[in-house]
Amino acid sequence: MAPTTETLTAERILEATEEVLRRHGPAKATVVDVARALGVSHGSVYRHFRTKAVLREAVTKRWLDRTALRLSAIVGQDRAPESLLREWLEALFDAKRRKAGDDPELFATFSVLADENSGVVDQHIAELTAQLTEIVRNGVARGAFTATDPALAARAVFQATGRFHDPAYASRWLRPQVRAEFDAVVDLLLRGLRAADHPAG
Amino acid sequence: MAPTTETLTAERILEATEEVLRRHGPAKATVVDVARALGVSHGSVYRHFRTKAVLREAVTKRWLDRTALRLSAIVGQDRAPESLLREWLEALFDAKRRKAGDDPELFATFSVLADENSGVVDQHIAELTAQLTEIVRNGVARGAFTATDPALAARAVFQATGRFHDPAYASRWLRPQVRAEFDAVVDLLLRGLRAADHPAG
Repeated sequence: MAPTTETLTAERILEATEEVLRRHGPAKATVVDVARALGVSHGSVYRHFRTKAVLREAVTKRWLDRTALRLSAIVGQDRAPESLLREWLEALFDAKRRKAGDDPELFATFSVLADENSGVVDQHIAELTAQLTEIVRNGVARGAFTATDPALAARAVFQATGRFHDPAYASRWLRPQVRAEFDAVVDLLLRGLRAADHPAG
Repeated sequence: MAPTTETLTAERILEATEEVLRRHGPAKATVVDVARALGVSHGSVYRHFRTKAVLREAVTKRWLDRTALRLSAIVGQDRAPESLLREWLEALFDAKRRKAGDDPELFATFSVLADENSGVVDQHIAELTAQLTEIVRNGVARGAFTATDPALAARAVFQATGRFHDPAYASRWLRPQVRAEFDAVVDLLLRGLRAADHPAG
């Protein structure tokens, strides 16, 4: 790539890094590979990302943040809490499924990066669980849900729906029955959130 | 091993096969390895298991059946459906966790065999889901649960608790918070099963 006069921002470097990963897989995407793709010296990349590890962590975070950002637009909507929660879970499943289905090689590459950067993945899960907690808390405030501990209930909902967003299950997301399975799990969880929060008589 | 005069049953062959797997990992456990461990000719093993694939499938089924058998003893108990369902899920989690924790190498070996024999795994999941369906159906008959389709609800419960029995999660079963996570998911599912089965107002 020819040298460019555009300002070299962290965002441009991360864009180029994702493109290098897309073309060459997880083994590549060193600072030198990325500098070459941008037509700049590796010194200028190092000014933004001090090591290969920092660069790879940042590009992983950017990949995960795209999903979290899309979902955050749903959280604050002024709508019935149940349909909001269902839509949020559908949007999460759709986002992961699209990433896995549209470009399976890049998805596999980011799965390798996610394993390398488990701290970033933990932050991503904490961010998503915080969004869910807000939906549950709003639902309790509006009288639609009855959870006594919204954060605990949100984590349970996130974990109980793992089959529909955990990349370990990606190979099963194209099966014809997956949509009915998703609906059955979400229906059951919504009934649980809606129910009076006391032991059965 | 010295030749023995005991009758060579399929069960004895499978016991020896599991022992060979325990000692040598998934690459071993051919008919010849097993015949050698038993001190018999491989012809006598072939009379019970025609191919290595049939032998490995049968030893995988035996490994999974042990869990299913232990759980089946819980299903028919005459007790409150909620505590029965909770105990069944705990017993499943305990059985898987013990297999993974007590002998991680054998667990890893059987994970390889399970990937090779997905039909046997599907049967195992169908068997466990049938047990769960019976618990849910009995709970509906006793007025404790309200699912309109017990088989659908049972599958949803099984899938929503995957984190606590799917071997893909084994590395997380020793974390200190896992027990609280299990309780939160099961509490939510039980509330969902207990709730009136109609859309919220």
